[in-house]
Amino acid sequence: MNRRIAIEPAKAYRLMNHGPTVIVTSHHGGRSNIMSAAWSMPLDFNPPKVAVVIDKSTYTRGLIEASGEFVLNIPSRALARLTVDVGNESGADVDKFAANGIVVGAGSVVRAPLVEGCLAWLECRLIPEPHIQQTYDLFLGEVVAAWADPAVFDGAHWTMEEGGKRSIHYVAGGHFFETGDAFDVGAP
Amino acid sequence: MNRRIAIEPAKAYRLMNHGPTVIVTSHHGGRSNIMSAAWSMPLDFNPPKVAVVIDKSTYTRGLIEASGEFVLNIPSRALARLTVDVGNESGADVDKFAANGIVVGAGSVVRAPLVEGCLAWLECRLIPEPHIQQTYDLFLGEVVAAWADPAVFDGAHWTMEEGGKRSIHYVAGGHFFETGDAFDVGAP
Repeated sequence: MNRRIAIEPAKAYRLMNHGPTVIVTSHHGGRSNIMSAAWSMPLDFNPPKVAVVIDKSTYTRGLIEASGEFVLNIPSRALARLTVDVGNESGADVDKFAANGIVVGAGSVVRAPLVEGCLAWLECRLIPEPHIQQTYDLFLGEVVAAWADPAVFDGAHWTMEEGGKRSIHYVAGGHFFETGDAFDVGAP
Repeated sequence: MNRRIAIEPAKAYRLMNHGPTVIVTSHHGGRSNIMSAAWSMPLDFNPPKVAVVIDKSTYTRGLIEASGEFVLNIPSRALARLTVDVGNESGADVDKFAANGIVVGAGSVVRAPLVEGCLAWLECRLIPEPHIQQTYDLFLGEVVAAWADPAVFDGAHWTMEEGGKRSIHYVAGGHFFETGDAFDVGAP
């Protein structure tokens, strides 16, 4: 498992603030699963919360509803192909970890695994809201632990640089944008 | 107002799929307002829906709740300074359009204005969900019309290129990432 540093709760929103595509991992009853999700966002600062859309057709959804837990993993460009592939297979049919040779590590609070090679990881506890889960496939979670690769996040800020690891933003098909150049417009 | 093309409902999610920062405009009772929102995402394909976090402290929130309408505007890097500024002023204190010299155009369905110089615009009708609005500041909307600048979106795909107009991804303070290089990993 790659090196990782713990991120304090008040800074965890920054891992997702720029809108990267995420990989969702889940675990229940001895089964783990992995899927990609283009639709996620932070929902609150501290305690940090997140929102993510999990379709009814997914195997992940049953694992999250049964365990009350999930992890949002933020992949780098090197994992873009995997991000597409795990979004198009179903954990009901195949063990996607074995089929794709995915290496995982353990989180500190939840049992869903952390995907090796990602840039950051948010361990989440489901905030049960059955009406919006059923009506909109919308799932809310409280971030109970957060981690980042110190090569790209210094504990408070992203340090992604040209030619280095970058997060990714899914469009459609096999098409993505890479997270681009950082810039600063000065203090608010 | 810049040139714009109508985007068919089934393609509207692509305007936000990559997680850009948005500017929220609203209008009610003769008053318009404008604020920025880092936390938004698509929620469904067709009819397209969106989710956005609108804090209780904002003047925008009252206008949206009263009118049942809002617009998500997707700014380019040229509007990054404005995006920070309208996120730090309150429409309760100042007419932010006049104070910032903001040029607007009219939408086709909702009365909230479209901000000149943006790359795309999603006219939305609020889907009332009082519990999550109150508890999480989370607002859902159905996209009732969508528009894009044909210089950067061809009706189905973003065509943003190096050196041209790019969407932006807010981090914190005055800090952003630009939407970076497009890449393709092949068919799913």
